[in-house]
Amino acid sequence: MSANRFGELFTITTFGESHGPALGVVVDGCPAGVPFDHDLLLHELRRRRPGSSDVVSAREEADEPEVLSGVHEGKTLGTPIAIVVRSRDARPEDYTQIARRPRPGHADDVWKAKFGHVDPRGGGRASGRETVARVMGGAVAHMLLAAVSPDTRVTGFARTIGPHSLTEEDVQAIPAGQVKFVDQFVARFPAPQQTTALEALLKEARDQGLSYGGLVELWVDGVPAGLGQPVFHKLKADLAAACLGVGAAIGIELGAGFEASRAEGSAFHQPSSGAPPYGGIRGGISTGERIVARIPFKPTASLLDTARRGRHDPCIVPRAIPVLEAMIWLVLADHFLWRQLDRSAELRC
Amino acid sequence: MSANRFGELFTITTFGESHGPALGVVVDGCPAGVPFDHDLLLHELRRRRPGSSDVVSAREEADEPEVLSGVHEGKTLGTPIAIVVRSRDARPEDYTQIARRPRPGHADDVWKAKFGHVDPRGGGRASGRETVARVMGGAVAHMLLAAVSPDTRVTGFARTIGPHSLTEEDVQAIPAGQVKFVDQFVARFPAPQQTTALEALLKEARDQGLSYGGLVELWVDGVPAGLGQPVFHKLKADLAAACLGVGAAIGIELGAGFEASRAEGSAFHQPSSGAPPYGGIRGGISTGERIVARIPFKPTASLLDTARRGRHDPCIVPRAIPVLEAMIWLVLADHFLWRQLDRSAELRC
Amino acid sequence: MSANRFGELFTITTFGESHGPALGVVVDGCPAGVPFDHDLLLHELRRRRPGSSDVVSAREEADEPEVLSGVHEGKTLGTPIAIVVRSRDARPEDYTQIARRPRPGHADDVWKAKFGHVDPRGGGRASGRETVARVMGGAVAHMLLAAVSPDTRVTGFARTIGPHSLTEEDVQAIPAGQVKFVDQFVARFPAPQQTTALEALLKEARDQGLSYGGLVELWVDGVPAGLGQPVFHKLKADLAAACLGVGAAIGIELGAGFEASRAEGSAFHQPSSGAPPYGGIRGGISTGERIVARIPFKPTASLLDTARRGRHDPCIVPRAIPVLEAMIWLVLADHFLWRQLDRSAELRC
Amino acid sequence: MSANRFGELFTITTFGESHGPALGVVVDGCPAGVPFDHDLLLHELRRRRPGSSDVVSAREEADEPEVLSGVHEGKTLGTPIAIVVRSRDARPEDYTQIARRPRPGHADDVWKAKFGHVDPRGGGRASGRETVARVMGGAVAHMLLAAVSPDTRVTGFARTIGPHSLTEEDVQAIPAGQVKFVDQFVARFPAPQQTTALEALLKEARDQGLSYGGLVELWVDGVPAGLGQPVFHKLKADLAAACLGVGAAIGIELGAGFEASRAEGSAFHQPSSGAPPYGGIRGGISTGERIVARIPFKPTASLLDTARRGRHDPCIVPRAIPVLEAMIWLVLADHFLWRQLDRSAELRC
Repeated sequence: MSANRFGELFTITTFGESHGPALGVVVDGCPAGVPFDHDLLLHELRRRRPGSSDVVSAREEADEPEVLSGVHEGKTLGTPIAIVVRSRDARPEDYTQIARRPRPGHADDVWKAKFGHVDPRGGGRASGRETVARVMGGAVAHMLLAAVSPDTRVTGFARTIGPHSLTEEDVQAIPAGQVKFVDQFVARFPAPQQTTALEALLKEARDQGLSYGGLVELWVDGVPAGLGQPVFHKLKADLAAACLGVGAAIGIELGAGFEASRAEGSAFHQPSSGAPPYGGIRGGISTGERIVARIPFKPTASLLDTARRGRHDPCIVPRAIPVLEAMIWLVLADHFLWRQLDRSAELRC
Repeated sequence: MSANRFGELFTITTFGESHGPALGVVVDGCPAGVPFDHDLLLHELRRRRPGSSDVVSAREEADEPEVLSGVHEGKTLGTPIAIVVRSRDARPEDYTQIARRPRPGHADDVWKAKFGHVDPRGGGRASGRETVARVMGGAVAHMLLAAVSPDTRVTGFARTIGPHSLTEEDVQAIPAGQVKFVDQFVARFPAPQQTTALEALLKEARDQGLSYGGLVELWVDGVPAGLGQPVFHKLKADLAAACLGVGAAIGIELGAGFEASRAEGSAFHQPSSGAPPYGGIRGGISTGERIVARIPFKPTASLLDTARRGRHDPCIVPRAIPVLEAMIWLVLADHFLWRQLDRSAELRC
Repeated sequence: MSANRFGELFTITTFGESHGPALGVVVDGCPAGVPFDHDLLLHELRRRRPGSSDVVSAREEADEPEVLSGVHEGKTLGTPIAIVVRSRDARPEDYTQIARRPRPGHADDVWKAKFGHVDPRGGGRASGRETVARVMGGAVAHMLLAAVSPDTRVTGFARTIGPHSLTEEDVQAIPAGQVKFVDQFVARFPAPQQTTALEALLKEARDQGLSYGGLVELWVDGVPAGLGQPVFHKLKADLAAACLGVGAAIGIELGAGFEASRAEGSAFHQPSSGAPPYGGIRGGISTGERIVARIPFKPTASLLDTARRGRHDPCIVPRAIPVLEAMIWLVLADHFLWRQLDRSAELRC
Repeated sequence: MSANRFGELFTITTFGESHGPALGVVVDGCPAGVPFDHDLLLHELRRRRPGSSDVVSAREEADEPEVLSGVHEGKTLGTPIAIVVRSRDARPEDYTQIARRPRPGHADDVWKAKFGHVDPRGGGRASGRETVARVMGGAVAHMLLAAVSPDTRVTGFARTIGPHSLTEEDVQAIPAGQVKFVDQFVARFPAPQQTTALEALLKEARDQGLSYGGLVELWVDGVPAGLGQPVFHKLKADLAAACLGVGAAIGIELGAGFEASRAEGSAFHQPSSGAPPYGGIRGGISTGERIVARIPFKPTASLLDTARRGRHDPCIVPRAIPVLEAMIWLVLADHFLWRQLDRSAELRC
């Protein structure tokens, strides 16, 4: 039992408060001999970092990861991999008011009910800053998959942001596994025709202290068949826990999802072109087809007064995408290891 | 790590294949001294049982639970509570064809990919029959909550079934915690005006081997504030894993959910009448307000040929409701125990 | 977290109070395709059963195991394997006095301090009867090892019972893995010259309500090199937890053990004939050499008055041996599965 | 499942290779509001540090701990507490020969069998250096107990070192809980009459590359009754796993231990003066009496050639004592939290 651990075999334990001295992750369960791709780690951290454009929070975070253990001469050792980032731009003074006045819509008050205190240093663990640790853990999971299942791809993008939605053509144009394609778009919303309007909307929201919800779509391609457990660790259940564990995520659907609830089955289950309506998972276990998940995010809570000084985002979705991708990689790595245990025929000492 | 265990502190381990000799659950972590409500156990089993009306599967299951351990003189002992039900109406011969021909839309083929075999006795663990064990475990969780938080209520009902949806008035008329109110309606769809039409639809579906998806809505009322962990065991994440762990569930939303993804925040977070748009959970932790969750179900896969002999349902939703409620009780019991560990001020040897 | 679960990957969850309706085990994590050896299961249960001779408790226990799940056509399915035995000879009336008067030396009083009650039905979980479930779980672990590492052998015998000790020649004469050889001796004490004297001692002890401690020695042969984790799940640590988890066990030593504490290293680490002084484990990991463990048992607590009616043993050691062997098999199965995860070079989806 | 995590509710996850950049621990499960005693942390690190006298390894380790998370204004936050120490005096060049030639008696070869490599930087995780992390975790556990059970004391000392043993009078003179009393003696062997001889022995051993085994005795006083679980997490089993998880520990006995195996029960169980023969634990659960454990250590493996450059100890026992104490504190903290869950009568939301 651990409130700060995720995974069963490939596990991460994260630590660090938003405005404390450091955030970090300990990856335990990664096998020995996996090539450690430091560039991938840096790239993923850069992708989630605020401050990279006008439409995300201006907070400066260098996020230089330091690998403290578990890697030697470019390969994993089979021992725990600890990675930390120091907090350079921590300004706890911005948050000293919280101790006195919980922010509306924030978790400050429930936190106080739970632990008997509000960490006055910026929301503590409940802050989005904690996701740095997840992104680092997810990058290691990604490295494992790259070694053992190189065709596996995870692709996230914004399907809607506030009033804006991708067209079907926009979606068709997204190449699987090309996060760089998505990243070139404002707010990771790959709709060339709407970019200008969206940018204007988000800037205005930022100036006026408004915030928008949005919908993330995730594709998992090239996932081996047979991942997932039939009862409690169904792949869909673990993906749901992974995605709903991200702040402001307020739901998930796989494949046809909510639309499926209105469908009749003979049509629904027919083979059709494109992604399977059940989201590439049957009986809780991957089929090898594309897994499609959609995760709605509520608007962030910070209104004008706090937002200006607290440096929050007008829409959380662009920054949530690399975090969600990281969580997906973690689930895949976990179930990949689990899969090794199922293969009875190959078991030999 | 266990593919058949759910929960961290209040745990269930389930066992039994669909058409094997018995199904069962071991509840571990229930404290001593909880009054054991055998009637509640029977009632919940009866609620999930097929064969109780024309619109659910005709399979006969007596489902007489036998408590093998953990209870003495009407109270829990603090030791594991094992409960089993024997399979009376197992007809494995109905399923012998599966070994040769996997059923379309079923998990038979992925199961074979995973374990190297298809259990020819009716889908094995992947069958809905496995949920008997969850319902029994959930009943024990319910008993614990009844003892320590008697105002907590879980209420599930069908919000939509195929083309039918509840009106806003129908929803308003549902009394919190009154499962008997909901149970009196065909398919647990409490819309008096649509009952006749729905019944006709389902009977026709049954005759023609059709199946419909549907949407379950769950209310959790009277839940203490402070349940949930801030990072990986957010209450919403655990609820999502619980609900997506049910077969045919293909998504979840809390509160405003997918609608929230299109909202702007200043309106969204205002106090309004009724249930909170964020679903009674903030920062992953319960606020004490009503938690609202909606879970879409895809149509069941069995088409005509198999359905007639395999005795499956034209819509899984009515029977999924007690299962989802059970899973919710399990999550609440788990987090209730977890809550005891947070209360530092009261800790004394 | 679970007080009634043992193991990390190959796990057992046990249930049942001494004088309740049944005892049972759920084995979770056993891969599919393992031949299920029902005779082995019966044999191991018979070996731990009291009543088989004059020198163990006269309590009658048929111990007919029923496999409720996880096995089909003679092979494991990869699903949880539940096995129960009914209590035929439960005489709770013998124990009704306990509720009023805790027995000296028994756990009754600490149990009451912990759970606020004494289960009046014969000691509840704290009874040796609970070990039926462990023996069944251990038998399944044994079946797994028999399939994947057929040369692995576990051999337990009494090294001393009260004032009697094996000679070095007695020890040399024991064939590895031949439990039947050991079982033919009174009290599993394979010293032909002392059998008559020992039998007389134990009968007298029984008549007079005396009890003796003893020392069990365990050999694990043919264990693959590389089992065990380097830090917290060192093989020696898991073996210690396994053996100290048996009632009345009051210590353990590996290899030279306590004698090693008086040794100087240059002699100690030299290769010598026979078993390695460090017990076949280095750095927490098996070397492939024989693992030798010795476990002292304190005398059972029951004195005359209770013993007559409570049907306890003058020496617990003979019956503890199959239980200890079962625990060893469980540890080996667990680490065998763990080993699969370490082999990075072979990992492929 | 995690090879680098210890504990169920109060858990530590450790990381760091012997000669990597840092070692660290993440404590998860410590409740909020516990006063954080930085001096205690420093003191415990200093106690295990080599280089403090002529008779332990001359390796220089500053061991300045940095608390990265979980503590604010002198109290724990209820969030994970990460503490790291940098390796100042890492001299990997000393160990480059290992890659080519495994050291006799070390774990290098089994490590290679397991992970397919030998970490050439000084034994990696298998090194005693890893225990820095345990000592830090144990210090936090100690802080929790100090807050909730201030009378609890853990006292460790060397009972024998090679040919030297404490007399009964020496043992009687040790004040419970006074680690400073013990620490003032050479090698933590509190026998004033033998100090000079022991010092000479160890210096000579150091010069000649010899090493000695020894026996540690641990007292746990003032432990609340009722700690421990009745079946698999018996307090004795968890203490055994804790102590056998320390390198070179090769056994454990509680109370009378191996002597008990030769005892007859009517004498054994009588109340006597002094510590209880069963070691303060009955049925796996603490009685409130003193718990006595004895742990034999084998001589360290390093012989002359490597010892000179590898800076190892002529006897591991003095430095193992603070590590064992830390492990005991961890077990107590874990079971203290577990105890909260048993107290059914007090459970209220």
